[in-house]
Amino acid sequence: MTDFGEDDFFIASLKGVIARINPRVRIVDITHRVPSFDVTAANFILFSCYKYFPSGTIFLAVIDPGVGSSRRILLVKTKKYFFIAPDNGLLSMVLEEEKVKKIREVANKKYFLEFSSRTFEGRDKMAPVAAWLSKGIQSREFGPEISSFEKLKIEKAQIKGNEVIGRVLYIDKFGNLITNMNAEMLDLLSQKTSKKKFFLKIKGRDIFSFVNSYSEAKKGKLIFLVGSTGMIEIASREDNASQKLKAKVGEEVRIAVRV
Amino acid sequence: MTDFGEDDFFIASLKGVIARINPRVRIVDITHRVPSFDVTAANFILFSCYKYFPSGTIFLAVIDPGVGSSRRILLVKTKKYFFIAPDNGLLSMVLEEEKVKKIREVANKKYFLEFSSRTFEGRDKMAPVAAWLSKGIQSREFGPEISSFEKLKIEKAQIKGNEVIGRVLYIDKFGNLITNMNAEMLDLLSQKTSKKKFFLKIKGRDIFSFVNSYSEAKKGKLIFLVGSTGMIEIASREDNASQKLKAKVGEEVRIAVRV
Amino acid sequence: MTDFGEDDFFIASLKGVIARINPRVRIVDITHRVPSFDVTAANFILFSCYKYFPSGTIFLAVIDPGVGSSRRILLVKTKKYFFIAPDNGLLSMVLEEEKVKKIREVANKKYFLEFSSRTFEGRDKMAPVAAWLSKGIQSREFGPEISSFEKLKIEKAQIKGNEVIGRVLYIDKFGNLITNMNAEMLDLLSQKTSKKKFFLKIKGRDIFSFVNSYSEAKKGKLIFLVGSTGMIEIASREDNASQKLKAKVGEEVRIAVRV
Repeated sequence: MTDFGEDDFFIASLKGVIARINPRVRIVDITHRVPSFDVTAANFILFSCYKYFPSGTIFLAVIDPGVGSSRRILLVKTKKYFFIAPDNGLLSMVLEEEKVKKIREVANKKYFLEFSSRTFEGRDKMAPVAAWLSKGIQSREFGPEISSFEKLKIEKAQIKGNEVIGRVLYIDKFGNLITNMNAEMLDLLSQKTSKKKFFLKIKGRDIFSFVNSYSEAKKGKLIFLVGSTGMIEIASREDNASQKLKAKVGEEVRIAVRV
Repeated sequence: MTDFGEDDFFIASLKGVIARINPRVRIVDITHRVPSFDVTAANFILFSCYKYFPSGTIFLAVIDPGVGSSRRILLVKTKKYFFIAPDNGLLSMVLEEEKVKKIREVANKKYFLEFSSRTFEGRDKMAPVAAWLSKGIQSREFGPEISSFEKLKIEKAQIKGNEVIGRVLYIDKFGNLITNMNAEMLDLLSQKTSKKKFFLKIKGRDIFSFVNSYSEAKKGKLIFLVGSTGMIEIASREDNASQKLKAKVGEEVRIAVRV
Repeated sequence: MTDFGEDDFFIASLKGVIARINPRVRIVDITHRVPSFDVTAANFILFSCYKYFPSGTIFLAVIDPGVGSSRRILLVKTKKYFFIAPDNGLLSMVLEEEKVKKIREVANKKYFLEFSSRTFEGRDKMAPVAAWLSKGIQSREFGPEISSFEKLKIEKAQIKGNEVIGRVLYIDKFGNLITNMNAEMLDLLSQKTSKKKFFLKIKGRDIFSFVNSYSEAKKGKLIFLVGSTGMIEIASREDNASQKLKAKVGEEVRIAVRV
C-alpha cells in the first residue's frame, strides 16, 4: 500500500527490487491511491482489509511524508502478520486491534539497496527488507527491538445523553460516508436508553432509514447501515451520499434514539 | 472484474479472502473501473476479453447494484470456463456466445465467510466460492442447478433498406466509439445491395474513410474500421473521436452503401 | 507498460493471451497510464525502473501510435534483459544505457495469434511473442537480426559558462519536476568554476534550497535535490511544485553557481 499513484515508475521500482530478491513471492496490491501523505486514510484502508489476508502475510505500507528524515522504519511482528512501515502513525488502528509480539527498528544496512537514496526509502530500504523477510531471514536480523512507536490520535465516538457522537472517518469510491461508530455503540445506547429505534443527524439533516442493506432503500434515498467494515455508514442507493450531503472526512455525525 | 475502483480496501479484501483459501491461485485483474453499477459496460468489457484466457479460468465479476437483496448469485459452467456473478444480466453477452453446460445458484453457506455482511457479498460469498472452486471443489457442491437467469436486452444492429442501423455500445479510453455492428453485417449489406463501398452516419455527420488501421488516416481525421473486438468502431487517429463528435453510449449509428 | 489505461478490456486481453501460452509466467505491471501515444514519457518511465528488475526479465512496452502501419516490432536482447516494443523510439533512453547484444525484427507469424487484427498488435503479436520467449523459445526464432532502430532525440543538458542548462523531462504524481540534469553535471560545473554552491532558475524564479531530502525543507517551500532517479528534481515538500510553478514538461531549467 502506497500513495505513489499508478502513473509513474515508483511501484514498478519497488516490485522490481522485490522480484530480484525473491522472484517467487506473491505481491498483492492493496492500493497505491492513498491520497498523497494521508496517514489517516492509510490507517483506515489497511485496517479494513488486513484481517482477510493469510497468516504470515508481510504488509508493506509506504505513505511517508517524512522520507529522508530521522523518522524510523518499523518492522512489527504480530501474532499473525508482519508490518513494515515508516514510524509515523500509519499502523495505529491495526496495532490497536492486533496482538503485537515485537517491534523493531529497521536499521541493518546489509539488507538495503547498495546505493540508497534519501528520497525513496520505500524502494531502497523497505522493499528489500520485505523481500528478505519473505525469503526467511529472521526478523532480529533487521534491527534492534524498540519499545514505543508513533501513534496517530484517531478520535473515538462517544455516547452522551441519548446520542452517539462521532465523525466521518473515510469516504469510499461510491461516496458512502464511513463513520467511527460501530454497531456495538448502538447496542450500548439501546441498553442505556431502553430504546431500539435510531435516527442519524449530519449537516443539519435527519436520516431515519436504518437498513440492513443498500437494496432495501429506493434509489437516491439517504440511509444508514452497518457497513462491510463493521462501522456505521451513510449511503444513498446507486447514488453518491457524500456529494448529496456535501460532507467531508471529519464531519460530525450523531445517532440519537427515536422517541 | 468489479466496479469497486482502486482507491479503497475493497479489492484487497477480496484478494485477501482468495489468498487465504488458495494461496497458489493466480489472480488477473480485468478492470475494477467499470462505471459504478453499469451492468451494460461490464457486459461488453467481459465479452471483449474473456476468450483470450486459458481453459479452466474462473471469472469473478462483481458489479452488483442489488447486493443484499434476493437477487441470486450465479455459478455458470461453460465448455471452457467458469463464471461467478450476481444474477443481474452481467453475463448476457458472454453466455450468448459461450456453450453453457450448467447454471447453478450459489447457495451453500459452508463456502461463505463465517460472518457474511449484507453489503459486501463480493468479499463474503463470491470470492470464497471462486477460491474454493479453484481448489478443486466440485461445482455441484455450491448450490442447486437452475434453469434460467436474468438477461440484459442488448440491442442488436439491423439491416433496413440500404443501411445497417446500430448504436454506440461502448467508448474506450482513447475515445474510440465501439458500435454493435460487426463486419458480417457489412458483408450481408454488400450481398443485399451488390455494393462494396460504405459510409457511416453519426450525429448528422458523414464519415467516408473506411480503413484497415488507425495509421492509414491523417491525425485527427474521423474514420471507421473493424476494431480489435470484431465490431465496427469510429475513431480519430491520435485524437478522441468521442469528444470530437460529442457522442455518447447509445448514440445511433448508420452505415449506408455509397452510390 | 502501456498507454491503454485500466478502464477497458485491453490489458486483460494481453494478460489472457500471455497466461494461455505460459500460465506460470509472472506479470508485473509497470504502468498502463502512460499518457496516450506519449513515447517520450514512456522512455523516461521505463528508464527509471527497468534496472531494478531481475536478470532475464522480458519488458513488453506498447505505446504504439503507429499500430497497423509498416513500423517494425523490435525484440532487443541486452546483457541482462529482453525488450519487446514498437520501433518508434520508445527504448531510446534504455538502450543508450544498456549493453545491447542483438536487435531483431519480430516477424515470424508462427508466434502471433491466429487471427491478428491491425489495430491491436500488442495483443495479437507482441504479447504472444513475449509469452513464447518466456517459455524458452530462442530469440532467433522470432525474426531476422536488424542493425538499426528508431531513436528519439532526447535533449541533453549542457554546461555553458557558469550554468547547466536543461529542461523538465517528466513530472511525477507528486508534482515533482524531474529534469534532464544529473548530479555529475553539477560536479563538472563545480570543477569548472571552483564553486560548490548552486541555485536553480525556472520560470523567472530563483530557488536556493539545494537539499538532500524533502524532509529538510519546510512544507510548501520550493527546493531542488538529486532525486531517486539520479536526476535533479524540483519539489515542494508535501505540496505540488508543478502547480506552484505552473511549469510543464519541456520548461527550461538552469542551475548556476552562487557567487
